[in-house]
Amino acid sequence: MAASSSLLSNAISSSIKTCQKSKSFAFSPAKFGEVGFKSSGFSLTNKSLKSNSANQQSFRSFTCRNSSDRSENDKVHEFSVYEINERDRESPAVLKLSKKPVFALGDLIPFTNKLYTGDLETRLGITAGICILIQNKPEKNGDRYEAAYSMYFGDYGHISIQGPYLTYDESYLSITGGSGIFEGAYGQVKLQQIVYPFKIFYTLYLKGIKGDLPKVLLCKPVEPHPGVEPSPAAKATLPEAAIPNFTD
Amino acid sequence: MAASSSLLSNAISSSIKTCQKSKSFAFSPAKFGEVGFKSSGFSLTNKSLKSNSANQQSFRSFTCRNSSDRSENDKVHEFSVYEINERDRESPAVLKLSKKPVFALGDLIPFTNKLYTGDLETRLGITAGICILIQNKPEKNGDRYEAAYSMYFGDYGHISIQGPYLTYDESYLSITGGSGIFEGAYGQVKLQQIVYPFKIFYTLYLKGIKGDLPKVLLCKPVEPHPGVEPSPAAKATLPEAAIPNFTD
Amino acid sequence: MAASSSLLSNAISSSIKTCQKSKSFAFSPAKFGEVGFKSSGFSLTNKSLKSNSANQQSFRSFTCRNSSDRSENDKVHEFSVYEINERDRESPAVLKLSKKPVFALGDLIPFTNKLYTGDLETRLGITAGICILIQNKPEKNGDRYEAAYSMYFGDYGHISIQGPYLTYDESYLSITGGSGIFEGAYGQVKLQQIVYPFKIFYTLYLKGIKGDLPKVLLCKPVEPHPGVEPSPAAKATLPEAAIPNFTD
Repeated sequence: MAASSSLLSNAISSSIKTCQKSKSFAFSPAKFGEVGFKSSGFSLTNKSLKSNSANQQSFRSFTCRNSSDRSENDKVHEFSVYEINERDRESPAVLKLSKKPVFALGDLIPFTNKLYTGDLETRLGITAGICILIQNKPEKNGDRYEAAYSMYFGDYGHISIQGPYLTYDESYLSITGGSGIFEGAYGQVKLQQIVYPFKIFYTLYLKGIKGDLPKVLLCKPVEPHPGVEPSPAAKATLPEAAIPNFTD
Repeated sequence: MAASSSLLSNAISSSIKTCQKSKSFAFSPAKFGEVGFKSSGFSLTNKSLKSNSANQQSFRSFTCRNSSDRSENDKVHEFSVYEINERDRESPAVLKLSKKPVFALGDLIPFTNKLYTGDLETRLGITAGICILIQNKPEKNGDRYEAAYSMYFGDYGHISIQGPYLTYDESYLSITGGSGIFEGAYGQVKLQQIVYPFKIFYTLYLKGIKGDLPKVLLCKPVEPHPGVEPSPAAKATLPEAAIPNFTD
Repeated sequence: MAASSSLLSNAISSSIKTCQKSKSFAFSPAKFGEVGFKSSGFSLTNKSLKSNSANQQSFRSFTCRNSSDRSENDKVHEFSVYEINERDRESPAVLKLSKKPVFALGDLIPFTNKLYTGDLETRLGITAGICILIQNKPEKNGDRYEAAYSMYFGDYGHISIQGPYLTYDESYLSITGGSGIFEGAYGQVKLQQIVYPFKIFYTLYLKGIKGDLPKVLLCKPVEPHPGVEPSPAAKATLPEAAIPNFTD
């Protein structure tokens, strides 16, 4: 099985390399032993950036302020990032442990992709973690995963995340903590799939941090659509297009 | 191995289907290659709902209130839910990767079960995540797991959880965050096993949320005992016995 | 594969038992199928305890105090612990699922080690969780993992953790929550490798808890160096050298 999982993984990774121009793929194996990608109908969630007002109320500043006051840290810091799979990190690793012909509970998918600012002009770092396949949803032509991973932002630190990843819909995950400038982070993050499983747009509603976010994170995001690409300078991680000691 | 894991998993799932009336099972394989369930002595934790006072102090309201004030969010919201494995989600997936005859470090158990209100009258959603086998405890006739999972509550959102799951004792896990009405959630949750691994009773001591919980969650819980069952209407997810867009 | 993973794991565990006096090992298999440990050049991070001032500001006490006030809980509680692998828990379990000759995305490493106070005089409990291999870094002679685990402190409760583990550098992870006296915990923890993968020194910068930490945790830590060992009494978990109901 693991052998076939590895073959599967390698085959997928080969398929990926030969398919860079295609827009949407599923790595759901349609039958066990049938390896590779089938084109699928995942809808492109090319939605406007209008925010869910329940999730990003702008909090008025509090009368009883102090630098150690949690209430000050309750300000919602909203910013966006893109997660892009550029097919050069041997990710994802599809561990087809369920032995079922389609994705099923028991399959595990460790992954690591690249992270860019919302304007796609700056390389930030990487994502790193695991997706646990919970359920194949044939009626939705997709899958429910439970995800646990972190976003890495070079010298700025990291943000830890836990929650749902649905290949057929947007979802909100928990921000469980962070380090560096993100120490004490909590709140939630909206995940919008653009091209499965290669391009994801996130909007973070971050609370609990001290001070303001670096300006580079507060850029105006490119509206998510299937054709989004990082700028050539960001892709090449030129010094002016990457944060200090960007994670790689 | 994975083949045997899958066989094991399938065999377990068959066994489960034929054993619905039995009260307590271990899926610890007694010998490697020996497949199926053995009856075990897991004690039924049919304990009273008396709460651990250290964990649910009722916080007095604070003098320095403000809608953005974290102190307001420090109120403990206590409520209970039942997690029930109705043997219809192909869960758990027992990944016997340790290759040991008994459960051992290296074994992984992704799972997804159904979630009901404490009074068992309303279907809420599902649980979804993974148990990492840490240690078989022969002297306790059980196992220590490290768990990372979420509870899903339909349109209300989700709660993320991380911590210990002991098949031979109750335990407290961390609430690591949440989304929707549970955005900003923290605190702890008490896990009480009733029938291993099919019925679990949870008491959540939730802090950090804005406003009050929906009334449906604040029902008086049925005292946990091995015979608990969701109401037929909740099991059938009739509209009056399920929350809006309950997770499935 | 899983068979070979198990063999690998067993072989490693045998190797470990015969090598207790050696200082530094890698369990990176140099070639697939080549089993056992090779001596490696992981630098011993025998660094001074001088702290990162950005991460442990001593917060001034706040004017608007109340027992339910989150701001009071924003005090940083700093303490240190040692995680020691004494080769008697069959840990780590190296699940070489990637099928690559070196560590690669797809490999999973569940683990559980012992936890001691910073002065190595008291046994506290255990660690328990999983490391997800993200990337082998040949140029750094090490690996990047994503880790999700808990630290267990007997009757005191547990602390949940999520974030980066780099075998070639120190790192900061998120504290995602806790139970018992650690209920509501957040903040970050610094991980300093001493002898890979057997000795790790942690400095916790813990916020969100009520009251003060037990004195036993606030001891003066032994400066991390490769020769650190728990006291014989702590190793033997004598009553005077272990916390109440230490986790095992």
